[in-house]
Amino acid sequence: MKKRLMTPGPVPVPPDALMAMARPMIHHRTEEFERVMTEVTHGLKYVFRTRNDVIILSSSSTGAMESSVVNLLSPGDHALVIGGGKFGERWAEICGAYNIEFHFIDVEWGKPVDIERVREKLESDPFIKCVYSTLCETSTGVVHDIKSLGAIVRTFEDTLLVVDAVSGLGAVNIQTDNWHVDVVVSGSQKGLMSPPGLAFISLSEAAWAAVEESKLPKYYFDLKAARKSLSKNQTPFTCSVSLILALRESLAQIKREGIRNVLSRHARLAQATRAGVNALGLELFAKASPSNAVTAVTVPEGVDGKALIKLIDEKYGVTFAGGQDELSGKIFRIAHLGNCDDLDIVASISALEMALSDMGYVMSLGAGVRAAEQVLCGSV
Amino acid sequence: MKKRLMTPGPVPVPPDALMAMARPMIHHRTEEFERVMTEVTHGLKYVFRTRNDVIILSSSSTGAMESSVVNLLSPGDHALVIGGGKFGERWAEICGAYNIEFHFIDVEWGKPVDIERVREKLESDPFIKCVYSTLCETSTGVVHDIKSLGAIVRTFEDTLLVVDAVSGLGAVNIQTDNWHVDVVVSGSQKGLMSPPGLAFISLSEAAWAAVEESKLPKYYFDLKAARKSLSKNQTPFTCSVSLILALRESLAQIKREGIRNVLSRHARLAQATRAGVNALGLELFAKASPSNAVTAVTVPEGVDGKALIKLIDEKYGVTFAGGQDELSGKIFRIAHLGNCDDLDIVASISALEMALSDMGYVMSLGAGVRAAEQVLCGSV
Repeated sequence: MKKRLMTPGPVPVPPDALMAMARPMIHHRTEEFERVMTEVTHGLKYVFRTRNDVIILSSSSTGAMESSVVNLLSPGDHALVIGGGKFGERWAEICGAYNIEFHFIDVEWGKPVDIERVREKLESDPFIKCVYSTLCETSTGVVHDIKSLGAIVRTFEDTLLVVDAVSGLGAVNIQTDNWHVDVVVSGSQKGLMSPPGLAFISLSEAAWAAVEESKLPKYYFDLKAARKSLSKNQTPFTCSVSLILALRESLAQIKREGIRNVLSRHARLAQATRAGVNALGLELFAKASPSNAVTAVTVPEGVDGKALIKLIDEKYGVTFAGGQDELSGKIFRIAHLGNCDDLDIVASISALEMALSDMGYVMSLGAGVRAAEQVLCGSV
Repeated sequence: MKKRLMTPGPVPVPPDALMAMARPMIHHRTEEFERVMTEVTHGLKYVFRTRNDVIILSSSSTGAMESSVVNLLSPGDHALVIGGGKFGERWAEICGAYNIEFHFIDVEWGKPVDIERVREKLESDPFIKCVYSTLCETSTGVVHDIKSLGAIVRTFEDTLLVVDAVSGLGAVNIQTDNWHVDVVVSGSQKGLMSPPGLAFISLSEAAWAAVEESKLPKYYFDLKAARKSLSKNQTPFTCSVSLILALRESLAQIKREGIRNVLSRHARLAQATRAGVNALGLELFAKASPSNAVTAVTVPEGVDGKALIKLIDEKYGVTFAGGQDELSGKIFRIAHLGNCDDLDIVASISALEMALSDMGYVMSLGAGVRAAEQVLCGSV
């Protein structure tokens, strides 16, 4: 069966990137590989919109999240964690694992954080060293307002803003330097449309100063060692060579399209997806600020959410993601992320409406596709 | 130029494994991927020679080394670290990073550890919870006697033996269960002839009991979380899907050849390599117990070691590894590891003798190849 992967990571990997991994293995301590590292770090800086170094870690994105706790903080430092979904809560879990005392802003899942609550917390506790937020909360399809967050956090001297842009980068607008985001964390398998297994982290000069002072224990995720190696276009430990070769191709594709065009494409695909599901009488899970990377849809009354996803996958070959943790069975998620185009959205909405029809859900077949097309061809 | 990769990781990856990575990306939270995980974990247990779970981490092997420190120890526990090369010393660095007090057995580089020194240390300090050793010390080409180490450590109740078998596994004999090795750490890019980026760790029941008690901080490398996911053929975080698909092919190839045959092939290739370099008047760096994974050769007087490696690479297309740290320029290393056969060794020795001849080193052209052939065709 012909398969279409519409999950928020991994995403379909472009053929050039897949083929790069099929070439004979090369050694990493060579000039040949160092040239690849140079290209890849340039490409990452372009997508991150930063002049800062972008460190490449061979790990899941969670490793880069952990690295931005253990390299920035010391025992006694406080943190501020913004919740609102599974990945916001992961920041809290990591701080907890390292005995860092943290304030937690408990945002209702499906809503973005109220920026004023962040200001209040920062005013209440001068020992907050890092604010940990998410750009696109993959579990709910909601985007937090990082630009406003950056504007607030920079008014608090010695406080750093750290953003998990894992599923956001390359799909949702984030301007690392312009918006004063000290640390941006991301991964390979989302907007960067490479295979999973690489994580990235950019740090401002203020963040590097914190790294110098940090006293939490670390070894594999030690960013000072990574930065020292990066200055020689290397990594401290044997890295995932194949994945870096794939990433080079994906980054080149982003460069050719242009990052602004990449972001507008994601905006168009997301808008078309939202129009399509709404036209079928379905509701978005996001109450506000829906993401251009992934659309979370509330499973309608009377429909078995897990059965719906299974049917779409097994009968129509389109893979959506289910809900995670407390949202399991209650939502499904359609990614429009990375290597994804207009007709992928048409196919996805089509599979959704046919499966809903199979399950006896009452709507007008073709209505979702029609609404999506109106957005895609600009007729609305 | 036709290239031959003869470095101790990464090693040449078999075509089937490379091709597996070129197939369209699949999602990891699917039954399809869980079937892959089942196959891969069976294959790993076969190569590790263990009934224990083998955990797969998406990281360099150093990540698995770190995980066997942070998951086994608590503040106040002591460790015993066996040196003798760059990787033995890495255990000390990791213990140091987590403020674990450790004894260090300073083994002369190029020699295996004297097992009696281990017994003495263990008798001197009842607070030693873990003994950290290396199977094959990749930096020197020396193998430590893990079987004897296992026999000694097991006589000390509550003390665990942890072995870095990164470059050893699948090339040098190690029998995890039979030899009472509590924890074995390895990686994908050596004897398992897959691309770099995956690390593995097997733990005995006694080791899992230590994991339950451990109080060092961890998150990404938390083995309890990994074991819980593994019971569902999953990983806690998005894993390096492509690399696991490649590993499945490499493990299948090992299974077809049979692990005993794989080990005898490595023994034969190593013996041929040693015979070849000796016949050219060169000396092994290993004073005793040379490894079947990699042969370290002392650069002869009057020859520029770095220039020699460069010439072999650039003129003959064969990539050897240089020396690391204090051995830089003093040795070169020829791997006979993983996806490597008799004629690869012939080609390597041939490139070596031609390059030595180019550099004016006096020996009899063809003598090295002849000596290697005598081993390979069994005429000695």
